[in-house]
Amino acid sequence: MSEKLSAEEMQDIISRSPFNKFCQATVKSVDHDKLELVLTMPMRPEFERRPDTGQWHGGPIAAFIDLAGDFAMALKVNAPVPTINFRTDYLRPAMNTALTATARVVRAGRTVGVVDIDVTDDNGKLVAVGRGTYAGSAG
Amino acid sequence: MSEKLSAEEMQDIISRSPFNKFCQATVKSVDHDKLELVLTMPMRPEFERRPDTGQWHGGPIAAFIDLAGDFAMALKVNAPVPTINFRTDYLRPAMNTALTATARVVRAGRTVGVVDIDVTDDNGKLVAVGRGTYAGSAG
Amino acid sequence: MSEKLSAEEMQDIISRSPFNKFCQATVKSVDHDKLELVLTMPMRPEFERRPDTGQWHGGPIAAFIDLAGDFAMALKVNAPVPTINFRTDYLRPAMNTALTATARVVRAGRTVGVVDIDVTDDNGKLVAVGRGTYAGSAG
Amino acid sequence: MSEKLSAEEMQDIISRSPFNKFCQATVKSVDHDKLELVLTMPMRPEFERRPDTGQWHGGPIAAFIDLAGDFAMALKVNAPVPTINFRTDYLRPAMNTALTATARVVRAGRTVGVVDIDVTDDNGKLVAVGRGTYAGSAG
Repeated sequence: MSEKLSAEEMQDIISRSPFNKFCQATVKSVDHDKLELVLTMPMRPEFERRPDTGQWHGGPIAAFIDLAGDFAMALKVNAPVPTINFRTDYLRPAMNTALTATARVVRAGRTVGVVDIDVTDDNGKLVAVGRGTYAGSAG
Repeated sequence: MSEKLSAEEMQDIISRSPFNKFCQATVKSVDHDKLELVLTMPMRPEFERRPDTGQWHGGPIAAFIDLAGDFAMALKVNAPVPTINFRTDYLRPAMNTALTATARVVRAGRTVGVVDIDVTDDNGKLVAVGRGTYAGSAG
Repeated sequence: MSEKLSAEEMQDIISRSPFNKFCQATVKSVDHDKLELVLTMPMRPEFERRPDTGQWHGGPIAAFIDLAGDFAMALKVNAPVPTINFRTDYLRPAMNTALTATARVVRAGRTVGVVDIDVTDDNGKLVAVGRGTYAGSAG
Repeated sequence: MSEKLSAEEMQDIISRSPFNKFCQATVKSVDHDKLELVLTMPMRPEFERRPDTGQWHGGPIAAFIDLAGDFAMALKVNAPVPTINFRTDYLRPAMNTALTATARVVRAGRTVGVVDIDVTDDNGKLVAVGRGTYAGSAG
């Protein structure tokens, strides 16, 4: 598969995964020149930190970061790749909001790739940032 | 609340969170001397990476690391604390298995605490390791 | 000291540290609105990875990242602060070049701050990226 | 070179690097079964954080972590390997002391390896911990 993945194809690949489907991760845009992928993910009752607060638990935010970074690398290698490691920094609570992840490939090497992921709320406020290492094009 | 949390009290606090409850995170042991907490988490269909593989998606593994590290700090501060950041390293695929997280406080300071989290499968094999920074006792 | 630090004052504080002085870390610019600091650091024979290659060892690159992140936080808090943790990702070898670090505060909280640090070579190529957590304004 | 590296051979390889030599990194022990390497590094005036305090700057501590992790991987692959990324957590100030790094390979894969590094002072107190990803045996 040497063709570049369209947003629709990317969405298909993402939704094949039961976890990603449960997360309702939705492709908003793909940019092959910038190697940038934008995804959204709505709140679910199962993702609440405390009952009736509308606050996201940090766990699904981290999962969203991993997922978004992985498929940003897929812009380069045309398939999901194993995550090697990633870091999550929480900046602000996310309350009563969907989340948007903007994932950008910083470096796509043969062995590994590095991706930065910014997670924002409905007001465009940064709620968390991620940085991940993924298997590269030869992986 | 200056008394140390028992395993039952810890379980109560954990299960109050809708996300933790959804994860069915279960306290196996608490050790106040070693500041070590052991939790388990069963597989759910929603956590699968690919359909019918029984393989854990990395996202819920990372969420489990965050959750376990957080409540290890709670051994020290008697309440859940905000996660500041954490790193997840994936070592091996986890297939058709429950997960066990052993979370140990490496350093509990006033401003922040550092916790190491090892995640193993049913055979005791290490599938992922985490290291997190959490708000400290004055946080 | 409530006044904002000028580039000259920042340089003075940096150079008071024997390690920073040995590194010849030099302030290129300070931007209080963007909370961004730019520093340079020349190659030294002691920083070579292998003899007569002109290649930077990763160790001093990581040290430069830590140093730059720390003083970016100083734009906010007017003094150097303890580093809590940081991550270094190496992207390309740095050969026969000085290094430039652009450090930008992503979030400056009371407890902790998060800083991103990009390290480039003489051609503007990214050789490493860092992300650090530093003690905040109340630290 | 398929033979396992002795402590003397490891020392020779380490000291070939001008930076490592400047750091006076000294092999204390190698353990091929545990894939564990112990190194020491004395204080130098150039590594002081503030003049006449005897306190280590964080930069050379991070560099020591990187170096120790790298050569722990060399126990497995018989040669120094590129560092992909690493995390440094500072736990306590290190004052008027040499440093000892105990680096242990957590997972040695073909693509990457993961190494944990504990840094202690002369009293055996933990001053920092590191976790790094290095190129693996096929790297």
